[in-house]
Amino acid sequence: MTPEEFRRAGHQLIDWIVDYVEHVEERPVSSSVAPGDVLAALPTSPPTGVDSFDDVLADVDATIVPALTHWQHPRFFAYFPANSSYSSMLAELLSAGLGVNGMSWVTSPACTELEIRVVDWLGELLGLPARFASTGSGGGVIQGTASEATLVAILSARWRATAGAVNDDGDTSRLVAYITSQAHSSLEKGLRIAGIGTANTRIVAHDERFAMRPDALAAAVAADRAAGLVPFFVCSTRGTTSSMAFDPTPAIAEVARANDMWLHVDAAMAGIAALAPELRWVNDGLDGADSYCTNPHKWMGINFDCDVYWTADRAALLGALSILPEYLRSAAGASGAVDFRDWQIPLGRRFRSLKLWFGLRLDGIDTFRTRIREHVAVTQELAGWIADDPRFEIVAPHPLNLVCLRVADAAGGDAATERLVDEANATGTVLFTRTVLDDRPVLRVSVGGARTERRHVAEAWELVQSLVPAG
Amino acid sequence: MTPEEFRRAGHQLIDWIVDYVEHVEERPVSSSVAPGDVLAALPTSPPTGVDSFDDVLADVDATIVPALTHWQHPRFFAYFPANSSYSSMLAELLSAGLGVNGMSWVTSPACTELEIRVVDWLGELLGLPARFASTGSGGGVIQGTASEATLVAILSARWRATAGAVNDDGDTSRLVAYITSQAHSSLEKGLRIAGIGTANTRIVAHDERFAMRPDALAAAVAADRAAGLVPFFVCSTRGTTSSMAFDPTPAIAEVARANDMWLHVDAAMAGIAALAPELRWVNDGLDGADSYCTNPHKWMGINFDCDVYWTADRAALLGALSILPEYLRSAAGASGAVDFRDWQIPLGRRFRSLKLWFGLRLDGIDTFRTRIREHVAVTQELAGWIADDPRFEIVAPHPLNLVCLRVADAAGGDAATERLVDEANATGTVLFTRTVLDDRPVLRVSVGGARTERRHVAEAWELVQSLVPAG
Repeated sequence: MTPEEFRRAGHQLIDWIVDYVEHVEERPVSSSVAPGDVLAALPTSPPTGVDSFDDVLADVDATIVPALTHWQHPRFFAYFPANSSYSSMLAELLSAGLGVNGMSWVTSPACTELEIRVVDWLGELLGLPARFASTGSGGGVIQGTASEATLVAILSARWRATAGAVNDDGDTSRLVAYITSQAHSSLEKGLRIAGIGTANTRIVAHDERFAMRPDALAAAVAADRAAGLVPFFVCSTRGTTSSMAFDPTPAIAEVARANDMWLHVDAAMAGIAALAPELRWVNDGLDGADSYCTNPHKWMGINFDCDVYWTADRAALLGALSILPEYLRSAAGASGAVDFRDWQIPLGRRFRSLKLWFGLRLDGIDTFRTRIREHVAVTQELAGWIADDPRFEIVAPHPLNLVCLRVADAAGGDAATERLVDEANATGTVLFTRTVLDDRPVLRVSVGGARTERRHVAEAWELVQSLVPAG
Repeated sequence: MTPEEFRRAGHQLIDWIVDYVEHVEERPVSSSVAPGDVLAALPTSPPTGVDSFDDVLADVDATIVPALTHWQHPRFFAYFPANSSYSSMLAELLSAGLGVNGMSWVTSPACTELEIRVVDWLGELLGLPARFASTGSGGGVIQGTASEATLVAILSARWRATAGAVNDDGDTSRLVAYITSQAHSSLEKGLRIAGIGTANTRIVAHDERFAMRPDALAAAVAADRAAGLVPFFVCSTRGTTSSMAFDPTPAIAEVARANDMWLHVDAAMAGIAALAPELRWVNDGLDGADSYCTNPHKWMGINFDCDVYWTADRAALLGALSILPEYLRSAAGASGAVDFRDWQIPLGRRFRSLKLWFGLRLDGIDTFRTRIREHVAVTQELAGWIADDPRFEIVAPHPLNLVCLRVADAAGGDAATERLVDEANATGTVLFTRTVLDDRPVLRVSVGGARTERRHVAEAWELVQSLVPAG
């Protein structure tokens, strides 16, 4: 591809994206393709010649776009959002255009230092404790996903609990971790990966608000210690995936401190709400946390992938993950420059801090605050509508931007809830995710799309009402 | 940022990138900034207002670009290349513009199925055994980096060796892994992460070509089995990082098969050479491998991040990594659609298959083959020049695109080699990486940049000669 071909195609693609984004609302949120449909539309043999960009873009239009779930659709209420923004697209394009690898300081100093600075900025904007700032014994780093942040936290905890011995002898058999059934699946996955195993993962009881019970945690830890085991890790989720429950971090921190356990706070979705000062309660208790993560690629509108992971104990992180082969030695690394390869699972890394930098400068903090406030307000309004309709029940607290509801037993109960999710999604006008709370199916309304406004939530509510017969 | 602002900024950035790429050769390969320089140039407090794109781009020019190591510079001979191409930039831009998350089939069917198809195409173009194709019991998947592929291989091996028990009881204490000192650092890191530990990682002896000795492997495995341990994993590197050594995979496969061990073949750099049919020997022995990875983001010119990991044993991979919480259940997943979240460490995933699709269609296979052949040819020519100069010694076989040299003892020896690397890099006209082979420092010349031509290698050689006094 020549520079002139790229220039022409690039301009064309920029315009195509504006068209896609500005008109995505007119599409069905999700696709009606069946498994295998896209495969059948693609040639079975690899291309032998060269195609024009026009041809490729025509195939994008014909084959790819109709078979997408449109995550940027304003009536996407499923999962948690993975947002996108024009500023982030520019940053991703610049990152791709520069094509540098920020694995070590020396392999692109600006890549490392811009990240240190924008992550410190974000910590300040969220009101995080000073112990997470790069200027102390901690620091922050961009990870791809909260799953990776979770794994890094577990590995740091494992290292500290064994004074690094686990790196040598691999003996993880006495270590025990504590989560609730509401913790994200990446906790179970990370604990498996790290060799802890499910038998040494305690599912601590939660209360009627789906939040961890600190007394149950304390009891479980005491029992394990009495049995000669080593409690080493507890996760406090601030904003669980199923219902947006908030574990009581301050009380959990007390148990962690008294038992020398690593406390990781997972606020992948909700943490970013703290950009609005009146919502900083979402991060209560971080003074007692060893690590924390939140996802700018969710509510903040930064393009996936952009999780930020902070730790107050950089030494444990480096102990767990640092490896220095001869071909990666550098004078700068030896003299203390930050090599972010040692803060993550992979070696190589893209220039992702550009996304945060562009977002904070081109969109601005007020854009993020306004969006968060509007989503919280409309979600509370939605909760009011649901509460006023006897056909439905709200089944969990809804302090932010997620409401979980089910069809009341008088109106059909669990079977009707399952049917409601399927029928609503089948219309193509919305996308919800189903979950299970207290063994009963639930419809989640997750409000967090960068382009989701009050009217979209109102339309979704009208649809839900229309699908459940009046009592 | 409004659509019109994005349109204008996008066109401007496309043009900026063409300018950057077409003129990167005029810049020093690496930066002369010291640690802290970039931080000092960035505001300590987060932005409070909104900046124009012109302002941001001016800061990119003033602060970021001068502090980069230019990985796309044609005289970048360091590490291994992490290449970039215009077609990949377009694909990254499209991926960012669509903003979909391909964690499950249902979360964007095209994202999953395009990946299945292009990865199968790549396997065909590389001449990989049919056991790795998606149509059998295996399949391929895009990982961010070879480090992640390595970890996934280790976890799959761990699962198979324990029939999944390790997921439950976390008992990794009897498992033993086998690598050489020349294996990539991600092997040691992955084995630590997975709880194997260095004490249960055997460093198998290598021969004078820096390739694993199968007899030493067999002996180590036998000794461990006699001691009641469980050999479970061996890595055969095809193209080591330090010297591009090729472990004898067929002989290693025999040992692996006889002892029920998982054989992972790491061809992160060299594997892609098999796009040229006469170089398919780089992947010899894959019929006996359980998993394999290579990096299109290196020699193929696809933008980082794009490693492809293939396994012949999908069941072990899914056993190791699959987790199914209620909020991720789908009818498609239940009926057997591929959910790539279960093939990797993270949950979320970008639409990276667009990069391979665009590369294969817009650049075309011949572009890749031509580049690979030219790089091999010029590297052999360089080796001839070195061999003809008594001031230098070639210290390892150089079958592809990497030559390791040192200053001959008569011309100054190890101290002169160290000085040569530092002085050459300090000129800014080239970038080399130093490594250590047989306890002696070595200068690596890694030829693999998408824009690296014969003249750049010749210029580099002239520089090297000019820095070592005639004998």
